Amino acid sequence: SLRRRGGPWPKDVGILAVELYFPAIVEQAELDHFDPVAAGKYTLGLGQARMGFCSDREDINSLCLTVVQRLMERNALCYDSVGRLEVGTETVIDKSKSVKTVLMQLFEDSGNTDVEGVDTTNACYGGTAALFNAVNWVESSSWDGRYALVVAGDIAVYGAVAMLVGPNAPLVLERGLRATHMRHAYDFYKPDLSSEYPVVDGKLSIQCYLSALDRCYSLYRTKVQAQWQREGSERGFSLDDFGFLVFHSPYCKLVQKSLARLLLSDFLSHPGPDTRSGLFAGLEAFRDVKPEETYFDRDVEKAFMKASAQMFEKKTQSSLLLSNQNGNMYTPSVYGCLASLIAQQTPSQLAGQRIGLFSYGSGFAATLYSIRVTQDHTPGSSLDKLAYTLGDLNVRVDSKKNVSPAVFSDIMNLREDTHHTADYVPRGSADDLFPGTWYLTRVDDKFRREYARRPLDLPSEPECVCGAAEHIPSPLKKMPRIPAAA
Amino acid sequence: SLRRRGGPWPKDVGILAVELYFPAIVEQAELDHFDPVAAGKYTLGLGQARMGFCSDREDINSLCLTVVQRLMERNALCYDSVGRLEVGTETVIDKSKSVKTVLMQLFEDSGNTDVEGVDTTNACYGGTAALFNAVNWVESSSWDGRYALVVAGDIAVYGAVAMLVGPNAPLVLERGLRATHMRHAYDFYKPDLSSEYPVVDGKLSIQCYLSALDRCYSLYRTKVQAQWQREGSERGFSLDDFGFLVFHSPYCKLVQKSLARLLLSDFLSHPGPDTRSGLFAGLEAFRDVKPEETYFDRDVEKAFMKASAQMFEKKTQSSLLLSNQNGNMYTPSVYGCLASLIAQQTPSQLAGQRIGLFSYGSGFAATLYSIRVTQDHTPGSSLDKLAYTLGDLNVRVDSKKNVSPAVFSDIMNLREDTHHTADYVPRGSADDLFPGTWYLTRVDDKFRREYARRPLDLPSEPECVCGAAEHIPSPLKKMPRIPAAA
Repeated sequence: SLRRRGGPWPKDVGILAVELYFPAIVEQAELDHFDPVAAGKYTLGLGQARMGFCSDREDINSLCLTVVQRLMERNALCYDSVGRLEVGTETVIDKSKSVKTVLMQLFEDSGNTDVEGVDTTNACYGGTAALFNAVNWVESSSWDGRYALVVAGDIAVYGAVAMLVGPNAPLVLERGLRATHMRHAYDFYKPDLSSEYPVVDGKLSIQCYLSALDRCYSLYRTKVQAQWQREGSERGFSLDDFGFLVFHSPYCKLVQKSLARLLLSDFLSHPGPDTRSGLFAGLEAFRDVKPEETYFDRDVEKAFMKASAQMFEKKTQSSLLLSNQNGNMYTPSVYGCLASLIAQQTPSQLAGQRIGLFSYGSGFAATLYSIRVTQDHTPGSSLDKLAYTLGDLNVRVDSKKNVSPAVFSDIMNLREDTHHTADYVPRGSADDLFPGTWYLTRVDDKFRREYARRPLDLPSEPECVCGAAEHIPSPLKKMPRIPAAA
Repeated sequence: SLRRRGGPWPKDVGILAVELYFPAIVEQAELDHFDPVAAGKYTLGLGQARMGFCSDREDINSLCLTVVQRLMERNALCYDSVGRLEVGTETVIDKSKSVKTVLMQLFEDSGNTDVEGVDTTNACYGGTAALFNAVNWVESSSWDGRYALVVAGDIAVYGAVAMLVGPNAPLVLERGLRATHMRHAYDFYKPDLSSEYPVVDGKLSIQCYLSALDRCYSLYRTKVQAQWQREGSERGFSLDDFGFLVFHSPYCKLVQKSLARLLLSDFLSHPGPDTRSGLFAGLEAFRDVKPEETYFDRDVEKAFMKASAQMFEKKTQSSLLLSNQNGNMYTPSVYGCLASLIAQQTPSQLAGQRIGLFSYGSGFAATLYSIRVTQDHTPGSSLDKLAYTLGDLNVRVDSKKNVSPAVFSDIMNLREDTHHTADYVPRGSADDLFPGTWYLTRVDDKFRREYARRPLDLPSEPECVCGAAEHIPSPLKKMPRIPAAA
């Protein structure tokens, strides 16, 4: 029979490597004074310090080209070792052609065109859908022993994250532990195809986000506890069981509110919480609140923000580096947070921990799931290597070039005026871009786009030597691919 | 440990049920005389008899609502039995909100919001990507025992197909047997976001399609043969090993050329073809042609069209019913062909056969893969049930209402003028729609869309009784879901 019946899942499928791209120029808090808003709206109200942005030299294609090539180079990977690549984005510059096919240019020299996966879309959720698809692929009979690559990117607002997925990963997606909540809502959407801006119902957006968080956490808890029950344990799940928690972050303040919200859920589902001392001290008055009535309740918010403040500092704050310094990254947001967390904790602090991740996309789609970090954090371990490649994140954030609000405003206006123009040569400077960044050189009269790349600086990146030692143990060695044709 | 290590793939994962939606009005071959083209261009040149189309009453959301609800009703399925739903489409009416989230309205009453999957995009390839994602999900540790639903739909041009995916299917995706070819090309793309029309490079399109077909078939053959070799057989693979072949069908004539192209590939890769009699009779002169030089070679095309004519009639022609009577369906095209094939063959003709499927999306992305039909075709078998639900396809095609070229032209102009308008009430008649069709009732001033449904006619559809006997054996019975929270 041609059909293999049954088959094993490989061990510890998850994220092996992470690479980030964010724009090289940034607008500072002076925006507070330039925009006609109350002073401190951005810095205090939203928790944002700076905001990265791109000129007309960059688009969703160039962003993704940059982050994929950077990931491949920094991990000395051959393009032939990738069997799946998909892109999550909500930046549409072509209604038909996928960003994935543009990225296939990077594979040309290797001759590898047998690469599954296309683009995945639902507001900021696309990257998470792509990640799950990649993990499922590795566990299915479709897997041919090669890596999967997942890219999440958006240029409205800005950034891209690439992740390498395979077995024996330092960040393992916990099996059977994910809870999804998807519904139809017009909280945030983009029906005007000629505009880059969304239609937003601010109040409905908050309600959708928080209700999805409530539902996902409640369902996640149910699934963990059911798993524990099958293993003979009757104990309940609480936030204590997460070592770290990262969230989709449209702005930093919402993340702080989200953790408070989860604590409210723990509190309300606790059979007999101690309100005289400890975590729940002084919360007795909130014992009977109904979560669905408290989305805009300032008293509840304030009380649980205070109660969760220490937990936030310990488990979540370090995930907000990029969010705070770059702004809302849209699709890659939650993965920018994950990378920030890894960059700012030591491998030994991360080892063995469960990380909770909440991904949200308007419209709306949300999932809470968890990653288990491997125990081995010795030098040379996969976790050590992952942390090493993210080690320069602080330096890269600091090396961003500050521009004034006036320059920012000019660049944004230029982008707005020209972003769907044919027969166009971008005017922005390519010199401001980080080394190794792809940029747009021309849009011809048939809207075809051409790109070039800024040279890489020293220190020189390791070169890919196919078949030779790789930074990351290749699954190829474990499971040989289909032999070439006879 | 929380992590389950290893795990089995369920048996015979594939397509359990198929449902189609196509528009109720159709333009006949008179178009040949109305349009300023050479007489016979559509009927003879492209192989098209009629072309279905929609008024301003329908959009991508309504199409997908219709086909999903129809599939659920006709198979008496509960919305709670679905754990994954995703949509492949290249029709963009919102750059952020997915069609998938609109479909979640159908799940409201069931309370089931834990449904993974969003939208998948690359020209006409999105449905295939979604199908592979669904099959991988069922085989991975993410599977929770429920069905997956895959929807492929487009309103530019027209139609939608929904497929139910799970184990113990009558149409089983063959494991390890799929070959993909993806590259960067500007053959067909939609960079003008305000227009529904693509930019097309006709010659490049043909070249991309045929080169992808060549590459996919060659790689598919390599993979099959490697599998056979591991099982101890050294024999080569040829078209004889396919019982049926279906193709992405932008127009029927290209499908006929595609089969001829595969025969050319068989011929050129054959170590010593008999050119005196049989399939390859009289083809000696083509022994040394280079495939990459023959994309536009009329002699090669003519010779291999002739040589494959009988094979086409036997293995492919019956798949073109909908393509011939409705036109290019874009994303659902290849699945419309699969459904046509099943509707027009008897279960006993289908039983045990391998069906080859070639899916193509411009830009470009292509996969050749195969489905093995189960052996059991007895009354009441899953294959028999699948064939039964598609049995009314001919009747439905015939009951389409013909309109004149002038009416067609008016409706198309109206759609063009209004398709991105806010604060709009569609003017098209809802009475022409098939019973059970969803249609647009209003686009409000914030672009929010509202829909209604035409009542179902007799005979009444079976009602879903959750937990009771279902048309299709539910995987739920084999693998119980997570128990509810304690």
